[in-house]
Amino acid sequence: MDGHGRHEDKVDNGFNHEEEEHGGRKSSNNGAEYEMSVEQIFEKREVPPWKKQLTMRAFAVSFVLSILFTFIVMKLNLTTGIIPSLNVSAGLLGFFFVKTWTKLLSKSGLLRQPFTRQENTVIQTCVVASSGIAFSGGFGSYLFGMSERVAKQSGDNGGFKNPSLGWIIGFLFVVSFLGLFSVVPLRKIMIIDFKLTYPSGTATAHLINSFHTPQGAKLAKKQVKTLGKFFSFSFLWGFFQWFYTAGDGCGFINFPTFGLKAYENMFFFDFSATYVGVGMICPYIINISVLLGGILSWGLMWPLIENRKGDWFNADLPKNNMHGLKGYQVFIAIALILGDGLYNFVKVFTRTLTGLFYQFRGRQSLPVANQHSSDTSDKLSYDDQRRIQLFLKDQIPTWFSVAGYVTIATISTIVLPFIFPELKWYYVLVIYIFAPTLAFCNAYGTGLTDWSLASTYGKLAIFTIGAWAGPNGGVLAGLIACGVMMNIVSTASDLMQDFKTGYLTLASPRSMFVSQVIGTAMGCIVSPCVFWLFYNAFDDLGLPGSQYAAPFGIVYRNMSVLGVQGFSALPKDCLLLCYVFFGAAILINSIKDMLGKKWGSYIPLPMAMAIPFYLGPYFAIDMCVGSLILFVWEKLNKEKAAAFAPAVASGLICGDGIWTLPSSILALAGVQPPICMKFLSMATNARVDNFLNSKS
Amino acid sequence: MDGHGRHEDKVDNGFNHEEEEHGGRKSSNNGAEYEMSVEQIFEKREVPPWKKQLTMRAFAVSFVLSILFTFIVMKLNLTTGIIPSLNVSAGLLGFFFVKTWTKLLSKSGLLRQPFTRQENTVIQTCVVASSGIAFSGGFGSYLFGMSERVAKQSGDNGGFKNPSLGWIIGFLFVVSFLGLFSVVPLRKIMIIDFKLTYPSGTATAHLINSFHTPQGAKLAKKQVKTLGKFFSFSFLWGFFQWFYTAGDGCGFINFPTFGLKAYENMFFFDFSATYVGVGMICPYIINISVLLGGILSWGLMWPLIENRKGDWFNADLPKNNMHGLKGYQVFIAIALILGDGLYNFVKVFTRTLTGLFYQFRGRQSLPVANQHSSDTSDKLSYDDQRRIQLFLKDQIPTWFSVAGYVTIATISTIVLPFIFPELKWYYVLVIYIFAPTLAFCNAYGTGLTDWSLASTYGKLAIFTIGAWAGPNGGVLAGLIACGVMMNIVSTASDLMQDFKTGYLTLASPRSMFVSQVIGTAMGCIVSPCVFWLFYNAFDDLGLPGSQYAAPFGIVYRNMSVLGVQGFSALPKDCLLLCYVFFGAAILINSIKDMLGKKWGSYIPLPMAMAIPFYLGPYFAIDMCVGSLILFVWEKLNKEKAAAFAPAVASGLICGDGIWTLPSSILALAGVQPPICMKFLSMATNARVDNFLNSKS
Repeated sequence: MDGHGRHEDKVDNGFNHEEEEHGGRKSSNNGAEYEMSVEQIFEKREVPPWKKQLTMRAFAVSFVLSILFTFIVMKLNLTTGIIPSLNVSAGLLGFFFVKTWTKLLSKSGLLRQPFTRQENTVIQTCVVASSGIAFSGGFGSYLFGMSERVAKQSGDNGGFKNPSLGWIIGFLFVVSFLGLFSVVPLRKIMIIDFKLTYPSGTATAHLINSFHTPQGAKLAKKQVKTLGKFFSFSFLWGFFQWFYTAGDGCGFINFPTFGLKAYENMFFFDFSATYVGVGMICPYIINISVLLGGILSWGLMWPLIENRKGDWFNADLPKNNMHGLKGYQVFIAIALILGDGLYNFVKVFTRTLTGLFYQFRGRQSLPVANQHSSDTSDKLSYDDQRRIQLFLKDQIPTWFSVAGYVTIATISTIVLPFIFPELKWYYVLVIYIFAPTLAFCNAYGTGLTDWSLASTYGKLAIFTIGAWAGPNGGVLAGLIACGVMMNIVSTASDLMQDFKTGYLTLASPRSMFVSQVIGTAMGCIVSPCVFWLFYNAFDDLGLPGSQYAAPFGIVYRNMSVLGVQGFSALPKDCLLLCYVFFGAAILINSIKDMLGKKWGSYIPLPMAMAIPFYLGPYFAIDMCVGSLILFVWEKLNKEKAAAFAPAVASGLICGDGIWTLPSSILALAGVQPPICMKFLSMATNARVDNFLNSKS
Repeated sequence: MDGHGRHEDKVDNGFNHEEEEHGGRKSSNNGAEYEMSVEQIFEKREVPPWKKQLTMRAFAVSFVLSILFTFIVMKLNLTTGIIPSLNVSAGLLGFFFVKTWTKLLSKSGLLRQPFTRQENTVIQTCVVASSGIAFSGGFGSYLFGMSERVAKQSGDNGGFKNPSLGWIIGFLFVVSFLGLFSVVPLRKIMIIDFKLTYPSGTATAHLINSFHTPQGAKLAKKQVKTLGKFFSFSFLWGFFQWFYTAGDGCGFINFPTFGLKAYENMFFFDFSATYVGVGMICPYIINISVLLGGILSWGLMWPLIENRKGDWFNADLPKNNMHGLKGYQVFIAIALILGDGLYNFVKVFTRTLTGLFYQFRGRQSLPVANQHSSDTSDKLSYDDQRRIQLFLKDQIPTWFSVAGYVTIATISTIVLPFIFPELKWYYVLVIYIFAPTLAFCNAYGTGLTDWSLASTYGKLAIFTIGAWAGPNGGVLAGLIACGVMMNIVSTASDLMQDFKTGYLTLASPRSMFVSQVIGTAMGCIVSPCVFWLFYNAFDDLGLPGSQYAAPFGIVYRNMSVLGVQGFSALPKDCLLLCYVFFGAAILINSIKDMLGKKWGSYIPLPMAMAIPFYLGPYFAIDMCVGSLILFVWEKLNKEKAAAFAPAVASGLICGDGIWTLPSSILALAGVQPPICMKFLSMATNARVDNFLNSKS
C-alpha cells in the first residue's frame, strides 16, 4: 500500500499507522469481490517466465512515473518532511498507462504480449525503489544538513560540504545497492517460513490483483478518472497561484486566513493542495497530533519563551540564531523525536527478538497484530501452494548476493573517504560489518509491524560515528554515516516488502530483484537531478520561512552537533525542557500502548507533534482541512469515500507536485511572476498608498 | 415565478425571457406529479374565508422576508442594476418559515389554524409588493440620479436634490398606491374573460400548489436545506472577504484574476457570490450577451477611443468627465437601451392592440406563445369551474377603486409639487390622466408576454415632461415624472400577476388586494430605510469604480439631460456612434424575431449587452461562471440541476445580500477591516518593499 511511507520510520513522519489503516481499508474493500480464492480466479491466466515479466514498456512507464514521484517526494522533503504513501497512485497510474498502451496496440493488432499483474508488480517495485531514493538520499535531511547554508544557521564550526550533482550521484551509487544484496538470501525464511505479514506489501498486492480482475479494472478506471480530475485541478491551482507570487511574502502561501496576528505565529491556511491531500491520506490522529503540536508550541510555548527575551537568552540575537528562540524550537523538537524514536526502537526490537525466539524454537507463527493475508493457516491452501511453487521456482544463488555485497562494500569503503575526507575508511568498514544484521532486523520488524526504523538506525550512526570522530570533522562524518546506514537499512526492508508483493501476485523473485536494481539505478540519477533543479531554481531553499525551508536539514545537523559537542550546543535553560519533552514522548507512547488499540488510538503521536515545533502549524491546518473533507465525505457516503478519497488525495498531491517542475524551470529561466498579492495591515496600507500616490 | 423581474422591462435588465424559461421549467417539473387535476387533489381541503387568509403570522413572516429581499434588491440596484427573480426564494422561505412555525405550534397543541396555500400566496404577494418598491423607488436609477453626486459627474447644470429619508418616504407613499387602484376593476376581464397567461404568476402558483401537496413539501424541504447551506456559505464568504478590504483597491473584489492589464480594462473575476448566483438563474443567452457586450466595449471600443485622446476629446479632461471617454460609455449605452426599448415597446404594444381587437371582436383567446396553464379549453374543466367560483365570490366594488384612485391622485397632485418645486401640479395631473390607460396596457402586455415595460413608460415620461419643462428645472422634473409613471405602471402589472396566482391557488382577490396594500406600505418604509443605511454607510456610493457605483443613476440623469438639452449634451463624434448602436439594437431585435424561437434564442440581447458598456465586464465574468456551473451540473444530472439550481442560486444571492446588513452596520459604526489584500505589479512591489524596509 505504501512506498515512500515504507522508507521512513515513525521518527521521521509518524505515518506508519496510516499504512496499516489503508491496507486494512483497501483489502476489506476488495475482499467482497472474492468469492473464489484469488488464485482460482487467475487460474487460467498463464504466468509468464521471469524475463518476460521485465518488459521495455514497464520500465518506460516506471521511468516516467519515477520522475513524477521524485518531484513530489522532493517537494515534500523540502517543505515539511512529511511524506504520505503514494503507492495507490503509483499502482493506479502504472496500471492506467500500460492498460491504455496495450489497448491501443491491441486495436492496431501490434500487441505481442498482454498486460499481466506480474508486469504491474514490476512497475510498482521499480517506481517505489526509484522514488524511495528521493527520501533515503537525505536531500531534506542529512545530505542537505552538510551544506553551508544550514551550517551558518546552526552556527557550529563543524565545516560544510555544499551539494553538487557529481558527488551526490557518486555517493548514491556506492551506497544504495548494498541493502538489496544484504537480505536477498533471507527471502525464503522471511516470506515462506516465518510467514511475515508485510502489511504494505500485502495491500499493494491486493490492489494489483483486484485491478486485473474485470470488476477491478472498472473501479480502477473510475479511480483514475477521479485522480486525473483532481490532478488537473491541483496543477492549475498551482499555476494560478504562481502569478501572484512576485516577491517575498506574496501570494496565497502567505494568506493570513485568521488575521495578521495569527499569521505572525504561523497560524494560517496556505491553500496548499498538496497538504490538503496529505491530510486526506493520513489517519485523523496524525493530523490532530500535528495540530496539537502546533498549538502547544507556536500558540503557547514560543510566545511564553519569547517573553523571557533578555532573561533566558540575549535579546539582541538575530531571529534565526540557534542560541535564541530558534534553538529552543530545534532542540525541543529533537528531544521529542529522539524520545519517540527510542521508545519505538526498544519496542520493535524487543518484538523482533521475541519473534525470532519463537520462530526458531517452535517454528510456529506468532500472533501478529495486523493480519491482512489469509495465508497463515497451517494446512496449505490452493493459493499458498501455487504461490510457494512459483516463488521457489526462480532462485537467486546465495554466492551471488554475498559476492555482490562484498564487492560493493569494498568499492564503497575505498570511494567514500575520497568524497568525504572526514569519513575515515574504518568508519565505513565498521558500518558495513554491522549493517547486514541491522538490515535483517529492520526487514523482520517491518514484516511484523510495517514499521521501518531506517532513520532511527541512521540517527544511531550519527551519534556513534560523530562521537568517535570527535570535534575534528565529526559533525560531517556523523551526517554521512547516517546516510550510509539509512540507505542500506531502508532498501533492505523495501525489497522484502516487494518480495511479499511478488509472492502474492506470482511475480518471480528474480524479476523483483532486477526491477529493484533498475529502479534504484534510476533513482540514483533522477533524484539528484531533481534536487539540483530545486536547488538552483530557488535561491532561498533551506532558509527558514522560505517556501522550501527543508526543516529536517537543521534538525539532523544539530543532532550531529549534539553528538560531537555534547550538551554544550544547547542554549541556556533549554536542556531542562529537552529532558521534559524526551520523557513526555516516552510517557505518551507508553500510555498509548497501555490503553490498547481502542483507546490508545485517541492518544496523539509525539513524533507527529514535533514537526510543527520548528516549522509552525500552517501545514497542520492544511492537513486538518483535508481531514475535515474526508470526515464529511465519510459521513455522507462511506463507501464512495473509501474508494475514491485516496484517488482524490493522490490527484491533489501529484498535480501540485508536478507543477513544481514547470515552476522551477520558470525560476531557472528567470521568468518572474507578474503580480504580488500582498497582505498589509490597515495602517501600513495607508502609508503604502500615500507613498504610491506621492511618487506617481 | 418572478417578483423583481416583473418590475423591470427588458429595457432595464433583459430578464424577461428568464421568467418564461423558469416558469416553463418549473411547471413541467411539477407537471409529472399531477395525475389527478390540481383542484381534485386539493378538493378535501377547505378554503378559508378571505379574512382568515390574512393572518398575523403571514404578515410577520412577510415583514422579515421583505427586509431580507429589500437588502438584496438594493445591493443589486446599487452595484449593476441587474435584478434576477427572487420569487423562488420568497416562495420557499415563506413556506419554510410558516411551516416550521405551525409545526412547532401544532406539537405544543396551540395551533388554531392550519397553513394553507392561500396564506402562502398572501405572503408571496406581500413580499413581492414590498421588495418591488426597492426597484420601482428608483434608488439606483431616477431617484439617485437627482443627487448632487450624480449631477457633478454628469456635469450638467440641471440642479440636484439629495436623498433624505423624509421626502423619499413621503414621495413613495403618495405615488405607490395608485397602480393598485387603477387596474382592480379590470381583473375579471383580464383573468377570466381574456384568460391571459401571466407566466410568472402561473409559475408561482404552480410552485405554491406543489409545496402544499405531500410530495411537494418533501421536495421543498430539500430545496430549503440546499438554499440554507449555500446561504450560510455565501454569508460567511462575504464575511471572510470583508477582513481583507482595508482601503481602496483591496480585497477579493479587486482580484486581477486574468492579470493586471486585463484588470485595468475591468476584466476580472471578483468572487461575488451574488453574481455567480445571478448567472445561475439567468438564461445562458443573457450571460453571454453581457459578456459579449463587455468584450465589445472594454475589450475593443474603449481602448480604440482612448487612443483618439486629444483628437476626439480633450486629453486633459479628468477621467470621469462626461465630455471624455465616460461620455461615450454612458451615451452609447443609452442608445442601445433606447433602441431596444423602442423596438420592444412597438412590438408589445402592437400585440396588445391586436390582442384586444381579437378579444372584443370574437371573444376568443388568441394563441399566445407561452401557454403554461391548461385552462384555455373552451369547455370549462373542474379546476376552472372551482377557480372561477371562488374568484368571483369576493368582489371589490368598482366605486371603491375609482374613489381610491381619485382621492390618492388628488392628494398626490397637491403634495408632489411641494416636495419637488420643479414638478408643476399640471404635469402630475397630465400623468395621472394618462396613467390608467398605460397601466392597463402594461398589465395586458405582461399577461401576454410576461414582459413588463414599466421603465420604458418611465423613460417616455422623462423625455416628454423633461422637454415640456425645458431647461429650467427640466432635468429634475423629468426624473421625478419617470418615478411617478414607473410606480403606477409597475404596480399595476404586479397586482394583476398576483391576481392570477391567487386565481390558481384559490386565494381571494380581496385578500390579494389587502396583502398588496400592506406590502406596498411596508415597502414604502423599509426600502428608504435600507437605502439610507447604504447611503450613510458607504461614502463612495454612486462614484464610478466604487463598490456601490449605482450605474443607472448617471444613465437616467443623462437621459433626462438629453431630453432637455437635446444632442448638445453629447460629446463630439459620439452622436454618430449612438445612431449606429440605436439602429443596431433595433436590427438585432428584428433578426432575433425573424429567426424564430429556435435560432433566435442564439442571438444576443442588445439590452443585456449595454450594461457592461458603462460598468465593465467583471460582473459578466461572475455570471458566466454561474452559467458554467449550471451547464456542467445539467450535463451531470439534468433533473437534480433543474430542481436545485434555483435554490443554490437563491442561497448564494440571499447570503451575500444579507451580509451587506452587518457590513453596512460595521461601516456606520466605524469598524474598519484589519487587513488589505493588495495587488501590485512586480516593479511596484519591489518599490513598496524598499519603502517598507527603509522605514521600519
